[in-house]
Amino acid sequence: MSVSSFHPPERILMGPGPSDVNPRILEAMARPTIGHLDPMFVALMEEIKSLLQDTFLTKNKLTMPVSAPGSAGMETCFVNLVEAGDTVIVCQNGVFGGRMKENVERCGATAIMVEDDWGKPVDPNKLEDALKAHPEASTVAFVHAETSTGAISDAKTLVKIAHDYDCLTIVDAVTSLAGSELRVDDWDIDAIYSGTQKCLSCTPGISPVSFSDAAVERIQNRKTKVQSWFMDLNLVMGYWGEGAQRSYHHTAPINALYAFHESLVILQEEGLENSWVRHDANHQALKAGIEAMGLGFFVDEAYRLPQLNAVTLPEGIDEAAVRKILLSRYNLEIGAGLGPMAGKIWRIGLMGYASNQQNVLTCLGALDAVLTDMKAKIESGKAVNAALEVFA
Amino acid sequence: MSVSSFHPPERILMGPGPSDVNPRILEAMARPTIGHLDPMFVALMEEIKSLLQDTFLTKNKLTMPVSAPGSAGMETCFVNLVEAGDTVIVCQNGVFGGRMKENVERCGATAIMVEDDWGKPVDPNKLEDALKAHPEASTVAFVHAETSTGAISDAKTLVKIAHDYDCLTIVDAVTSLAGSELRVDDWDIDAIYSGTQKCLSCTPGISPVSFSDAAVERIQNRKTKVQSWFMDLNLVMGYWGEGAQRSYHHTAPINALYAFHESLVILQEEGLENSWVRHDANHQALKAGIEAMGLGFFVDEAYRLPQLNAVTLPEGIDEAAVRKILLSRYNLEIGAGLGPMAGKIWRIGLMGYASNQQNVLTCLGALDAVLTDMKAKIESGKAVNAALEVFA
Repeated sequence: MSVSSFHPPERILMGPGPSDVNPRILEAMARPTIGHLDPMFVALMEEIKSLLQDTFLTKNKLTMPVSAPGSAGMETCFVNLVEAGDTVIVCQNGVFGGRMKENVERCGATAIMVEDDWGKPVDPNKLEDALKAHPEASTVAFVHAETSTGAISDAKTLVKIAHDYDCLTIVDAVTSLAGSELRVDDWDIDAIYSGTQKCLSCTPGISPVSFSDAAVERIQNRKTKVQSWFMDLNLVMGYWGEGAQRSYHHTAPINALYAFHESLVILQEEGLENSWVRHDANHQALKAGIEAMGLGFFVDEAYRLPQLNAVTLPEGIDEAAVRKILLSRYNLEIGAGLGPMAGKIWRIGLMGYASNQQNVLTCLGALDAVLTDMKAKIESGKAVNAALEVFA
Repeated sequence: MSVSSFHPPERILMGPGPSDVNPRILEAMARPTIGHLDPMFVALMEEIKSLLQDTFLTKNKLTMPVSAPGSAGMETCFVNLVEAGDTVIVCQNGVFGGRMKENVERCGATAIMVEDDWGKPVDPNKLEDALKAHPEASTVAFVHAETSTGAISDAKTLVKIAHDYDCLTIVDAVTSLAGSELRVDDWDIDAIYSGTQKCLSCTPGISPVSFSDAAVERIQNRKTKVQSWFMDLNLVMGYWGEGAQRSYHHTAPINALYAFHESLVILQEEGLENSWVRHDANHQALKAGIEAMGLGFFVDEAYRLPQLNAVTLPEGIDEAAVRKILLSRYNLEIGAGLGPMAGKIWRIGLMGYASNQQNVLTCLGALDAVLTDMKAKIESGKAVNAALEVFA
C-alpha cells in the first residue's frame, strides 16, 4: 500500500499551542539547509542568541535554544541545576508543576510541593513557609503562566523570596514569553525555559532557555555529571558558547532554527512590549464576547492570562462535540481541559500570530453558532458585537 | 541594532551530514501547522510509523520518530534499556562508540569497552571474549556505520553473538539507514536509532527509533523509573502508541514531521534497495576519481561505507584551507576529521539526495582544481574523467 505526500488542512489554531504560525516563519523554514558548522550558520546562531536575550530581557550569556520541545527545555534546567540528594521546592498550581516534580525526582532529588488550587496563582506566603521549613532546599521551581489553567503567578516576588533563602530559581515561561510581561534580569531569574509554538508564533520543536551567571556557576561546579548527555550544558556550551571555535556536540535542527530566528526578527519588528499590549487587547475583545454569550472564565481577572483563556462550559453541553464541530466546520481548533480540568473548561489561545482581531471574531462567531445549534443555554447573537465594540 | 531575516547560501552538502535536502522535503516543511492532537495529524503519525517500519524492515510496533536529533535517539535507547548497576558491553571503533560509553555511565551502569582500531569494523571475536568474561552483561551496544571513520560493522553477526549470551542489543544506524543494507527484523536487532539528516535527505532534528518486543518488555518491567521524563518511552508510547486515543506527552515538532513523512514517501517511491544500490554506484564513481587524483581511502574496501568516504590527505596540505576554498568558491561543504581523526582525513558524504552524479563530478572537479592550485602532489586533471567512465 503506497502512501502519498501529506497536505494538511489550513486550521485556525486557538488552542493551548501550537498557535497559528506566521507565514514568514513557514517560508523561512523552507530555505536551503546548510551545515551546522558553516560560518554562515555560526553567524546565525550569534543573531539568535542576541535576539533571544532581547526577548527574555536579559544579558545572560548562556541564552540559547535547546534542540527539542519545551519539555526538553524544562528537563535541561532540572538535570543541570539539580543533583541527587538535593531538595527542590516545587510550586504546583496546574499540570506543569506536576511535571516539574517528576523531573526533580528523576534527578534523584526530593521535591517539596507547595500546592495551590488550580486556576489560582502560586501563593508567595506558602512558598516562604516551605522555605522556612526546609532550609536544606537549594532550588525553587514554579510556572510563570500555567498553560493548563490560564493563571499567571507573580514571578518577581517568588524569585525574591527564593533568593532570600539562598535558592536558585527555575521558571517555566512556555506560555508567557512574548505574551506577558517577563523580565529575566530585572526579576533576577536564574534559569528559564520556554517554547516556540506559543506567543512566538513559531513551529513547535525548539525550547529557548536562559541561565544566569549564578546558575552557570552551579552547573560548572557540580559534584556529579549531568545525567543526560544530550542536555548537558557543559557540553552544549561548547557549541552554543562564545568564540568562533564551535565544537560539535549534536547536529542542530538547522531549518527549525531558521524559523526560530525569523520569529524573533518579527517580534523585534513589532517590539516586545507592543506584543504584550496586543495580547492583552485581543483578550479584552474575546472576553467581552465570551461574557456576552453568557459564559465565564475559570480564572479571576486579577491573574488571568490574556493569551490562554480558560472558559467555563455551558451547562449540559457535550464539550468534545463542540470542539469537533468547530474543527470540522470552521477549521478552528480550541483546546480541551488538561488532566483534572478535562470536561470542565475550554482553553482558547490567543497567542502570537493567532492573537488578532480576525481570530477573535471568527472564534466568537463560530462558538456562538455551534452553541445556538446545540440549544445550549447561552445568550446567542451578541458575542461578535460585544467584541467589535471593544475593538472600536 | 536591528537584525534582518536570514537568507542562507545554497550549499552542496557533502559532509558527514546534514546532507542535501530534497526540495520536496523543504516544501513539505513549510505547509500549514496543525495541532498535535488534530485527527489529521494523528493519521499522519500512523503513516509515519508504517513508512518507518518499511524503512527499518521491521514489524516492531514501537517504531517512531523521537522529537530531537540523533544523539537524543541514542540517549532514548540507553536510558530506557539500561538501569543503574547494569553492565553494558560497548564496542568502540570511532567517536560514536565513545558517546555510547558516556550514555551508559550517565545511567549509573558499567560500560565494558571492546576496542577496535578506528577505521576497522567491530571484531566479533573480541565481542564474544568480552561476553564470556562478563556474564553479568545485559546489553551490547555498537555502531553499525561509524560516521567518524566511514567503516561498517557486521551488525547481523554482532547481534547474533549478543543474543547467544542473553544480551539485548542497541544499534546506532544514524549513517546507515537508507544508505546501506539494514534489516532490523532479519538481524533481530532490539533497539535501533538513526537520524533524518543523512541518507534520508531530510532536515536535521528528528531521530527515528525502533524497539523489538523484547526491548519493550524490558522497558515495561524496569525496577526504576527512566531517568529522563522527556525520553521515557513508557510515557511517549501514550502519544505515539496504538489506538485513536492519544494522550498529550510533549508537543510534537509538527512541521519537522511533515518533512520526515515526505522523506519517507520519497524513499518509498525510489525503493529501499534501490536507494542502497544508488549509494553504492555513486561511491564507485567518486572512488575512481579520488584514486585517479592519487588520493586514498582510510578504510579498507571490504568494510567501507559508500555514503561516507574517509579520504586520506595529500602530504603537506593545509586541509582546513582546502575546505575553506571549497566552501567559499564552490559552495561545497565536505567534512573534517572528527576527534583523533582531525587533520588526518576528509569526510566526503554521498548521502540521500546528495548521492548523485552531479555532486560526484562537482566535488571531484572542485577538489582537483583546488589541490592543483595549491600545488599538492597529486595527479591532477584525471579525476572527473575517471568518475565519468564509471557512470558510463
